[in-house]
Amino acid sequence: MLRKGYYDYSIDSRDTDYTGHATLTAMCHYILEAAAEDADLNGFGVADLNCGNCSWVLSRMAVEFGRRLSKNDRFTVRTWVSDVSRMMTTRNMTITAEDGSHVASAVTLWAIIDLEKRIAVDVRPFIDCSKAVIAEPMPIEKPCRIGQIETRQSAAHQVAYSDIDFNRHVGSLKYMEWMLDMLPEEYFEKKQAGRVDINFLHEARYGQTVAINYEQRDESLFEITDNDGQAMCRASFRWRDTQQ
Amino acid sequence: MLRKGYYDYSIDSRDTDYTGHATLTAMCHYILEAAAEDADLNGFGVADLNCGNCSWVLSRMAVEFGRRLSKNDRFTVRTWVSDVSRMMTTRNMTITAEDGSHVASAVTLWAIIDLEKRIAVDVRPFIDCSKAVIAEPMPIEKPCRIGQIETRQSAAHQVAYSDIDFNRHVGSLKYMEWMLDMLPEEYFEKKQAGRVDINFLHEARYGQTVAINYEQRDESLFEITDNDGQAMCRASFRWRDTQQ
Repeated sequence: MLRKGYYDYSIDSRDTDYTGHATLTAMCHYILEAAAEDADLNGFGVADLNCGNCSWVLSRMAVEFGRRLSKNDRFTVRTWVSDVSRMMTTRNMTITAEDGSHVASAVTLWAIIDLEKRIAVDVRPFIDCSKAVIAEPMPIEKPCRIGQIETRQSAAHQVAYSDIDFNRHVGSLKYMEWMLDMLPEEYFEKKQAGRVDINFLHEARYGQTVAINYEQRDESLFEITDNDGQAMCRASFRWRDTQQ
Repeated sequence: MLRKGYYDYSIDSRDTDYTGHATLTAMCHYILEAAAEDADLNGFGVADLNCGNCSWVLSRMAVEFGRRLSKNDRFTVRTWVSDVSRMMTTRNMTITAEDGSHVASAVTLWAIIDLEKRIAVDVRPFIDCSKAVIAEPMPIEKPCRIGQIETRQSAAHQVAYSDIDFNRHVGSLKYMEWMLDMLPEEYFEKKQAGRVDINFLHEARYGQTVAINYEQRDESLFEITDNDGQAMCRASFRWRDTQQ
């Protein structure tokens, strides 16, 4: 069995919002950071895949949140791969605060793409499943498929330098940031996230103009579309009232 | 003499841009993070000032850059206060990579404001100068005053949730991010920053619409203004060609 990863982080000044709590995007950043660190350590990180002109692509993510963290709080992300099928890898995370309390659990689904042909390829040659997979169940329900939404509110955004990552594509968490920026202020003051599901469908690129579409049902639903109306990213945020 | 601060950090995935180098905003983040940590440790941090219903406000900053950092690079920020006058404190930084090479030097000027009256107050009662000041010269020329610019290009932005910090005001480095997003792509590919000067004049708040105005002379000049044309932040970026 390969290394079963535990990764320690702490909340710094840019991770918190005006309520003093760590933002959803900051928490998801650490989830993805732990995924990257663990894949690197186990020989199937981005650098390893790049040698074969391939790369990881995050396809879906679900996170359920427990207690919120504040500045300087230390926490540990535990991550493990529970399943490797032909086209998809399932990687799980549980986040625990220093005092042992539950902060979040996540399930992420990853594909591998050929960087030149831009198509998904068989994941299995890259990972030694007999060593990499830990047969432990997912900590929460796997990320659901989110359907088209009825747009009630929409904002336009032109993809800029600060939005793009090492791939020249919009970083996964930028979509989430754009979505959260559409919400009324009361969501940050009176509510906290219960569960978030995100589907990544098509990558947005530098210079492209995208629409961030929002519909409020029981949950907050978002769909980011390109100029042709093609969905690039969809997400659902379920909230619960904050107990003060 | 109080603790002479050395603070260790490393470049993580969100600190780099598509060229693989740490962004200017990431480097400035660590400069401000070290300032905050050092003030905390020496008894005049934001939490200490908040007890007297006051807070630090960054007034001006200048940074000169040496070699650029990449993902996982470790570095040390050394910071010290070189001067405390009635209305302003001068805090310096030098950043050194793990191999001893020079990464950046900075001079920052800070005022203290009364949070209720929103006016600057005497800095000296908050700091024991005989202990806090290290009589060592500034590592670079102090931040210059930047005048009004001739707007050649302008973009509008509505201040959103992800822009604001614990104070409900736009975080200092968001202004810099908005400015960099106005630059043509070639600046990130063919040039690197030599020196950056920023003047913070008025804080932008949640929901406000601001204009980011840009003029290219020998340096890149920016001015962020509110709806009445009042300047909120001005900056000058001087570039040099990247040797690859």
